[in-house]
Amino acid sequence: MRPLDLVRKKRDNGELSPDEIQFLVRAYTQDEIPDYQMAAWLMAVLIRGMTGPELSALTAAMLYSGEVLDLSGLPGVKIDKHSTGGVGDKTSLIIAPVVAAAGVIVPMISGRGLGHTGGTLDKLQSIPGFNINLSLNEFRRVLKASGCGLIGQTAEIAPADKKLYALRDVTATVESPNLICASIMSKKLAEGIDGLVLDVKTGSGAFMKTEEDSVHLAELMVETGERMGKKMVALITDMDQPLGLRVGNALEVEECIDVMKGGGPADLREVSVELAGWMFYLAGRTPSVDEGRELASALIGNGSALAKFREIITQQDGDPAVIDHPERLPQAQHQAALLSPSTGFVASIQCEQVGVASLVLGGGRERKEDVIDPAVGLVLQKKVGDWVREGEPLCTIHYNSGARLAEAQGLLRHAYRLAENPPATRRPLVHRVISGKGTPA
Amino acid sequence: MRPLDLVRKKRDNGELSPDEIQFLVRAYTQDEIPDYQMAAWLMAVLIRGMTGPELSALTAAMLYSGEVLDLSGLPGVKIDKHSTGGVGDKTSLIIAPVVAAAGVIVPMISGRGLGHTGGTLDKLQSIPGFNINLSLNEFRRVLKASGCGLIGQTAEIAPADKKLYALRDVTATVESPNLICASIMSKKLAEGIDGLVLDVKTGSGAFMKTEEDSVHLAELMVETGERMGKKMVALITDMDQPLGLRVGNALEVEECIDVMKGGGPADLREVSVELAGWMFYLAGRTPSVDEGRELASALIGNGSALAKFREIITQQDGDPAVIDHPERLPQAQHQAALLSPSTGFVASIQCEQVGVASLVLGGGRERKEDVIDPAVGLVLQKKVGDWVREGEPLCTIHYNSGARLAEAQGLLRHAYRLAENPPATRRPLVHRVISGKGTPA
Repeated sequence: MRPLDLVRKKRDNGELSPDEIQFLVRAYTQDEIPDYQMAAWLMAVLIRGMTGPELSALTAAMLYSGEVLDLSGLPGVKIDKHSTGGVGDKTSLIIAPVVAAAGVIVPMISGRGLGHTGGTLDKLQSIPGFNINLSLNEFRRVLKASGCGLIGQTAEIAPADKKLYALRDVTATVESPNLICASIMSKKLAEGIDGLVLDVKTGSGAFMKTEEDSVHLAELMVETGERMGKKMVALITDMDQPLGLRVGNALEVEECIDVMKGGGPADLREVSVELAGWMFYLAGRTPSVDEGRELASALIGNGSALAKFREIITQQDGDPAVIDHPERLPQAQHQAALLSPSTGFVASIQCEQVGVASLVLGGGRERKEDVIDPAVGLVLQKKVGDWVREGEPLCTIHYNSGARLAEAQGLLRHAYRLAENPPATRRPLVHRVISGKGTPA
Repeated sequence: MRPLDLVRKKRDNGELSPDEIQFLVRAYTQDEIPDYQMAAWLMAVLIRGMTGPELSALTAAMLYSGEVLDLSGLPGVKIDKHSTGGVGDKTSLIIAPVVAAAGVIVPMISGRGLGHTGGTLDKLQSIPGFNINLSLNEFRRVLKASGCGLIGQTAEIAPADKKLYALRDVTATVESPNLICASIMSKKLAEGIDGLVLDVKTGSGAFMKTEEDSVHLAELMVETGERMGKKMVALITDMDQPLGLRVGNALEVEECIDVMKGGGPADLREVSVELAGWMFYLAGRTPSVDEGRELASALIGNGSALAKFREIITQQDGDPAVIDHPERLPQAQHQAALLSPSTGFVASIQCEQVGVASLVLGGGRERKEDVIDPAVGLVLQKKVGDWVREGEPLCTIHYNSGARLAEAQGLLRHAYRLAENPPATRRPLVHRVISGKGTPA
């Protein structure tokens, strides 16, 4: 097999065999194929697309480039949730304890913030002492002890994805739905799960801005996961404004604690319960999604979720006192209100700009080597549809640097659009459910 | 300007501005853009195509990456011919002296053999002493002295093409008509010519196997040349069997001398006269192509072309005695006839295989560093439409190595296809003329 022939085949719209794809991924990961040849292949894949069998073969090749967790020794069903990323998208911190509280095992390997979106790992690390750098053996121990673990990707997981992602990043081939699917699924399937609930975000704060693109990616992932024997469902959920009211690492942890205490913003609560409900259904824990939602609400209401969260924090060396004393989470030195320039209804919030505002405050990374400031971020006082009087605060900025404040203010000022009348239609929180053949809604 | 944005633009079917293309080519040539990024761009160009203005900008950027000959000091019109390459395609050695004999200046910068096709430079170097490695200054001197020079590409000519070609070769992006066009035209326009006759080969021995592909490439080149102010025409000529009877470097030189002495095979004579006729017409030397052909035939008939060839050889340090004593050209040690296995008509000759047979005998290069054996090659006794009796020779193989002979015999045996009846239709020598707006036929 010659790599150049495989580049030519995809270029000419041919279908590569599983063996050919396996060869390409293996040889590239082992540095036997130069970057320029793989770059040409990736561009051909982006433009020509892939067949279902090609995508499954790519996902499998990337998955088996590294270690796949064997959790068969742990009794119980293993289910995870993955979000394609958004602004204020903090549901993992609620869902993992909720679902684990019912005895379902949640082996969650999460990511850092990417671009304008936040990352579960960065949020967790705002909890003093919380250790996300567990070895796979330590991860197994934690899963056994509390039924849930939240860690970062280790070097053993899908090394092919790591190398391919770095190349995609510099060759304008990140946006291929097939390559996105293979990247996500190869990492998630390495968790040794039985089923996966996908939260595919859509709107101005998502990577996929249109519902059409979000649905296409969701379908690819559901099909690929099912072909590999997993129970799959994807929810297309709204990311046209931030989820909840808080954006920023410690601020978001606090909001999650609020939800698990029975409060918190309604949209965050609703999306979390929805996703957890589907996880229960996929796990076979409840006979329907409706009952799954009810179970999730009950586990929040009776304090079980919060107790499980406390247990997880303790298991991973964090300080569980933050639950009862959220003021122990990192706090920014200053706060500044962004005041409304006029009176009217909030017509829209350009959500990506809100994410970038949090990033420039220090809540995200502009370059890989940047260090995150866990304390900074935003608290929204007004969301889409809310009425606001001139001079009232739209949001409060938590900051540690005046220069960064100014930049964030500029972004936020342009993110809010006001109008005389309330928006005619409200976007739903859940746009659509893409259920797998094995998991009818 | 960021290279990645330009890759993305082409990926998404956008049109790059001349400045953007100029930036890419300059930065890549100066090693400021990594191979993997350019590879992704090249693949996007191959699949998405280019607009006319993009192609002109690419050609110009590659052209001006190096030196462009200024021949304005030499009186007279400068016209060249370029062939896309074939088997037994030796017309340059006839045309250059014919056209220069009429006072038109022919500054011919030629190439080596590529794949299964022969190269003008390799053929010329079978003439003892012939020096194709002239500096551009020496080239100017030769052009002034005899109105014609035949040299190889120097490092000063289109260095961007050299670097891009090497990358295309290893990323399956050679076959893009736009990239082929820019590569050819950037080198040809560096010759400082006023007009160019393109000989675009079509058929089993050409790089473009179908007439459709050949016409498309011809149109791109004619349009690009005209946009850059040159007189242009392209002839689509047949390469479904070798041109003439001889394939191999010294063997082809001898056949060219035969033609200039008034003999030689009819097809070679006809195509040479046709191309030279168009060169005269583009040069304004004759008011019509018909008169151009007549002039070409006359210059062959009265010995002027041969005299000019003698002058060119002398100017470039070759031994002109080969003209009167062709046996001074390198001769192979052995000859072997390939006998016909049956009686019948030659229905077809798979022309690429004939080229590969000459290559394996040593007449071409399998790897860049291979040294050519100028003496080896083939002399065809039978061509398409000829009747042959069982046991009669189809062709004679000139060889210096028994092992190579066996391989060539195998290829040639499969190249000839015999049939009971003569082929129903004869392919024309000239399939079509693509004339520029400025040079109506």
